[in-house]
Amino acid sequence: MENQRIVLVQRPNGLPSARHFRAEQAAVNAVPAGGVLIKNHFLSIDPAMRGWICDLDNYLPPVAINSVMRSLAVGEVVSSDCEQYAPGDRVTGWFGWQHYAAVSAEAIIRKVLPEEGPLSLSLGVLGLNGITASLVLRLIGKPQTGETVLVSTAAGGVGSIVGQLAKQAGCRVVGLTGADDKVERCVSEFGYDVAINYKSATDLQQAIKTLCPDGVDVYLDSVGGPMADAAVACMNINGRIIQCGTASIASWDPIPEAPRRERYILTKRLLQQGFVVFDHMSLWPEVIAQLAAMVKSGELTVQEDRRSGLAAAPVALEDLYSGRNNGKTLIVL
Amino acid sequence: MENQRIVLVQRPNGLPSARHFRAEQAAVNAVPAGGVLIKNHFLSIDPAMRGWICDLDNYLPPVAINSVMRSLAVGEVVSSDCEQYAPGDRVTGWFGWQHYAAVSAEAIIRKVLPEEGPLSLSLGVLGLNGITASLVLRLIGKPQTGETVLVSTAAGGVGSIVGQLAKQAGCRVVGLTGADDKVERCVSEFGYDVAINYKSATDLQQAIKTLCPDGVDVYLDSVGGPMADAAVACMNINGRIIQCGTASIASWDPIPEAPRRERYILTKRLLQQGFVVFDHMSLWPEVIAQLAAMVKSGELTVQEDRRSGLAAAPVALEDLYSGRNNGKTLIVL
Repeated sequence: MENQRIVLVQRPNGLPSARHFRAEQAAVNAVPAGGVLIKNHFLSIDPAMRGWICDLDNYLPPVAINSVMRSLAVGEVVSSDCEQYAPGDRVTGWFGWQHYAAVSAEAIIRKVLPEEGPLSLSLGVLGLNGITASLVLRLIGKPQTGETVLVSTAAGGVGSIVGQLAKQAGCRVVGLTGADDKVERCVSEFGYDVAINYKSATDLQQAIKTLCPDGVDVYLDSVGGPMADAAVACMNINGRIIQCGTASIASWDPIPEAPRRERYILTKRLLQQGFVVFDHMSLWPEVIAQLAAMVKSGELTVQEDRRSGLAAAPVALEDLYSGRNNGKTLIVL
Repeated sequence: MENQRIVLVQRPNGLPSARHFRAEQAAVNAVPAGGVLIKNHFLSIDPAMRGWICDLDNYLPPVAINSVMRSLAVGEVVSSDCEQYAPGDRVTGWFGWQHYAAVSAEAIIRKVLPEEGPLSLSLGVLGLNGITASLVLRLIGKPQTGETVLVSTAAGGVGSIVGQLAKQAGCRVVGLTGADDKVERCVSEFGYDVAINYKSATDLQQAIKTLCPDGVDVYLDSVGGPMADAAVACMNINGRIIQCGTASIASWDPIPEAPRRERYILTKRLLQQGFVVFDHMSLWPEVIAQLAAMVKSGELTVQEDRRSGLAAAPVALEDLYSGRNNGKTLIVL
């Protein structure tokens, strides 16, 4: 059986673009003993991917050159040599940018249950994005009623859910995003009290001060860089900075310079902490069940940016880093 | 009655030196209603003082120009208009750089009990230094047996106690200090497994890597700056950075630049948190009692750097920021 797949051909120094990948056709690999053959239906496009393909230290080993791009995906079991899974089961896991994945059972993260709703949700609100949004607030942000929560990439896969969850927690929720239509959606769909297009701000720190008259108690930092510097300067005493990504930093080689934060951290007793969702997999089932119930009841609004066809994946990733996405980016196969 | 006192005459842009202060003679102020007159015996010299005399945002309002320098001190009640305190009581509190302090009762932090041992301890191991050392480990560092704890200003008032407490917690304890005799004392007196004179290191990050072959789990950062950058680059996954001071930063105006830390914070899931000991005064009595028992039993070694006479205070403060101190700096009146 023929497979189409996308492989990594070059490591970017900085942000990935389509030229770092190549589409190719090859026979489907043999299913390993005890493994499973999966037909992918949706592929996930995630900000974390740049970290997976560079060769700097990270929480996962780098994707090897000329091998299939690592990706979460959701699909259907075609054949199985593992008694846990049967043909027809819907599963999500590390299946890569390809049509068919012949994988060991460990590559499967979980079965997707019918009551969870549409299959694609398992890559967004019921996948890394939603779980991250829920756990960063529970484990690090700990927003209290009346506090102000500031969110970068406010209309993105994680940000759009953080906005809604923080609003439900009784917070003032302020969004930073990169396009006027996203500003509009932040307020109309994702629960934000107010949002701005940071690209239009002449003085971002002053803009944040104005939007957050009581200061910032929780900052979800998915971008790093000057936006984070401006946010940190507006933090209240005992504020929490969630380091969830560094999307705005084009390259870490050499490491860019920034204003020192030690004095803010000390005098404001700030807490800044890094978060990697894979550290907390024991909490996933509980969080997924909660989020699924909220989607079903209409408490959570979900937005997907669907792109068609395997070949769209590299450009979709490039677009993600340029902010040319509307909610969770998915490839429909 | 005549009083001698030292007042702030100028705000330093950066580190304070003797020229920012002036000694003067004046009548002792009238004791406010409900207040107390105290004769100071020891004055404390603390790294936090630079923050108290600059006009940047801080956790206390800045000391006013031409007023007595804010300082913790310990002394004896001479007369009292407050039923809680009687002449002869030994008390510590915010009594300033002066011989006599006519203060309201709120300026008194606590009575010093005879069983605590020598009076001066209440300004060091049983004062800000010891309480800070104990609480930063308990509340932020949370060192586990077998972990590596790296300590800046390792032979200083806080560092010398952190070293001993971390060693007792079963950690490998590594000290960074600025003089060869302090390196020697770190190992012989303060429980460090190893210490170095950071001024002799040509590549501090490499030196830390060598001293901490298993990486750094807890970094006590009392200095900030390039030393902190080198330490952060050596942190293990889930490492904790305690922001306890910024002594190495000569000036925050303009804010100096440094390599961005977002990627370390994220990929290593680091926690960096600021600590101000005055936030935790409800825990002080318990901590003081623990530390007093450890000093009495000989479990804790205490070193004091005593200077004589009120006039020595400004120079002692200048020396503190230059590392020209041996343990807790005190003025004996």
